[in-house]
Parts: sequence; C-alpha cells; structure tokens
Amino acid sequence: MNTPHPSNPAKVLAFDVFGTVVDWHSGIAREVQALCPGVDGSEFALAWRTGYQPAMRRVMSGELGWTLIDDLHRLILEQILEKFGLTDLTETQKQHLNKAWHRLDPWPDVVAGLTRLKSRHTICTLSNGNIGLLTHMAKRAALPWDCILSAEVFRAYKPDPATYLGVARVFNLAPAEVMLVAAHQDDLAAARACGLQTAYIERPAEFGSAHPKDISPNLANTWHAKDLLALADNLGC
Amino acid sequence: MNTPHPSNPAKVLAFDVFGTVVDWHSGIAREVQALCPGVDGSEFALAWRTGYQPAMRRVMSGELGWTLIDDLHRLILEQILEKFGLTDLTETQKQHLNKAWHRLDPWPDVVAGLTRLKSRHTICTLSNGNIGLLTHMAKRAALPWDCILSAEVFRAYKPDPATYLGVARVFNLAPAEVMLVAAHQDDLAAARACGLQTAYIERPAEFGSAHPKDISPNLANTWHAKDLLALADNLGC
Repeated sequence: MNTPHPSNPAKVLAFDVFGTVVDWHSGIAREVQALCPGVDGSEFALAWRTGYQPAMRRVMSGELGWTLIDDLHRLILEQILEKFGLTDLTETQKQHLNKAWHRLDPWPDVVAGLTRLKSRHTICTLSNGNIGLLTHMAKRAALPWDCILSAEVFRAYKPDPATYLGVARVFNLAPAEVMLVAAHQDDLAAARACGLQTAYIERPAEFGSAHPKDISPNLANTWHAKDLLALADNLGC
Repeated sequence: MNTPHPSNPAKVLAFDVFGTVVDWHSGIAREVQALCPGVDGSEFALAWRTGYQPAMRRVMSGELGWTLIDDLHRLILEQILEKFGLTDLTETQKQHLNKAWHRLDPWPDVVAGLTRLKSRHTICTLSNGNIGLLTHMAKRAALPWDCILSAEVFRAYKPDPATYLGVARVFNLAPAEVMLVAAHQDDLAAARACGLQTAYIERPAEFGSAHPKDISPNLANTWHAKDLLALADNLGC
C-alpha cells in the first residue's frame, strides 16, 4: 500500500537501525541463551530493550551526562542480570554480552534492499547507537552505508529535533529532501514534525513471534512498505 | 623502506584525505580550466589550497564561529576569483566550482589499497573536510570506508588533539591501537604526540609535477610507504 509518489524525491535516506535494519530480539536472545542456557532469552532481550528509553531519558533530562549507548546498555545489563538471577558472570563475559548489540543480524531483505536504494540515494544511519557500535555492526553484516550518522554526532538522542534536522544540515539539504526510514511510528512522527519525508517499514516480529507488533499504516507517512525491497520498488530503485 | 612491525597492530586506520587519498591539485586545476579556459589551473588550485590553513586558524582562534570546510572553501574562493580576475562568474557557477572539492579523484592505488586494508582493519577518514563532502566524494569515487569521521564530528580541526584522540574514543581503543595514515609530516607528528601509530604515504605530485614535494622519510613514523598498496603489504593485508 503506497501513498502517491511525492513530487520532490528524497536525496538522502536516513535509517533507524535497531528493529528496522537489524533483528535485535533474536540476536540478543540467542547470545544470552548461549551464555546462560537456563534463561529465557526472549524475555531477557525484551527486558534489556525496555530499559533503553528510560536510560536515554536520564541522559536527556541531565541526570546523567552525555552517555554512549554502549555504556547505557551496560548500565541496564547490570540491573537485569540481577533480576534474572545471573550474578556469577565474569567481567569478561559481561563485556562480551554487552557487545552482542554490535553483532545483530540484518533482516533478510536488508543487504539487497540497501544496495538497490544506494544506487539512487545517499543512505546513512540515524540511530541512537554510537558510531563505534554502528561501524562494527555494518562491517560484520556488510551493510553498505554511505555514511554513519548517530546521536553521538549530534549529542542528542532521537526524537530530539536536533537529530533529524542534523541530517539535513550535514548534507546541506532542506528537511523535505531527507527521508527517515523506520519501523517505529513515534520516530517517524518526530521526523515528520521537522519536515522530513517518512517511510514506515513493517517488522511484525521485532519483539519476537510470541509478541506480534501492530503494523497498521499511518497515512501521514510518505510510504508504507513491507520491507526494504518493497521500498526500493516504491522509489524506483 | 620500513621500520619494524610494531608488536601491537592497529585496529583502526584513520586516513587523511586531501592529498593522501585524493589528488586535489589535478582535480581543482582541471575543473577551473574547464570553467575559465584562460586561467592557469595549477596556480589557481595552489592558491585555493594555500588559503585553507589560514582560514581554519581564523575558526580555531575564535575569530570565526565553527565553519564547515565547504563554507571555508567558498570564503577563499571569493578572494582568489578576484585575484585571478574572474569576477564575472554567476552564483550557480561559483557553487558548482566550490563543489569541485567533492569531485576529486583518488590516486590510482587507493581503491585497491583501501579494499585490502579493510579486510583486516577498520578504515575511516579523519579529515578536516565536512561529513557531506567526504560522503559525496566516497560515493563518487567508490572509496570503501567503514565510517566517515571528520573535524565536524569533533568540532575541532586537525592538528587539535581532540581529533586524533576522538577516533580512539569513538572506537573505545587506546591511542596506540589507532594509526593515522597521511602524506603530511605535520599531521603525523601531531597524531604521534597523542600516542597514535603513524604511516607516511609518499605523494610526490601532490602540488603538481611542476612543484615536486619533499618525501623524505621520518624515522619517527611507524611506517613509510610509497602508496596504499605498499602499506597493505607492510601490514600483511
């Protein structure tokens, strides 16, 4: 289902990463279960991810100074390890587990979809993940970004307008020449409020097959696509 | 000619861009001459580049606020157009000419050299050029960066230590795990003072064949290589 093609095609496509490009739920669940066989990996992954928004709010409120997502992930990890009764992990094991967020696999359509989209657009990340994390992830998973942009560049997390408008400023474009591509309506709404075009990507299994996600379209988005291959079709790539 | 292989190989190779990766002199000279056939393209390119360091000093001294290199290039361009008697260019022509810095060609060894180096290292830019410029250049010239880092990320120009140490911080590494690769001894000396490894690349024609450059080795560098293919040989890539 598509809205009409906008008259002004976006020059830059900026992608949300966790959930939109990579499958964090399966990746984290798999790594936790490999390290701690008795644990429910799915529940552990959901708990870890649930701690993410409150932790970022602590930074944005000023309670914490500017903090990389790697370090926020570690703060949350300490809390949920205790909750799940996993108090005997070594420091090395904890560091390795925390880096599981660097080792997430892309959804099956992603590498082919990005490669097609890159042929006619500049493609970049716009993630709250830090630059090092996004670079390691891209190298491991062969994600063909033209450029890695992050909250770390703008010193603000999404949905702060400084992030969406920052992409336009980096490329010396009007906001309407940039499109945010994301699987989350709140992220897209914040980008739209800044004047960006928006593309919603369905990721019904983002939270695992036991927790299907609402993937209803919002007609306010410029595009609604099943995956990145469908978005490439929509954009004529 | 090589110094011994260091015991601690660098995980990240950060590359200076103008002169080290791309041939700014030929590129600018060619574009100026195409636009203004009567002008000495080589002299124009040298004058434009000569304005670069003083312009950055005006920013770092606080006389100018933080300014992207695209905008510094434009400030300098206005001065040298007058000096070369080219006062009849249209605004569109000036904007196009200013973007010639986005359209520079790599030296012949670069794409193959970077591709080999990328197989065993994370490769990124560390340039005073802005992110948009470096992204456009990489896309046009197929430079396979893992990540584009720039003065724009660190809000400081090289040789400010914040830039060299910023690369280490982004990747959560010790300075000695990062190597600056550059064709300029002053850039390398500043990186070395921050604890980075350094590799000097010979680019004898950086200023044009009429102005050969001193490419004498400095034994303080970790490596001295003819080009990026030789550096890949040195690093076992």
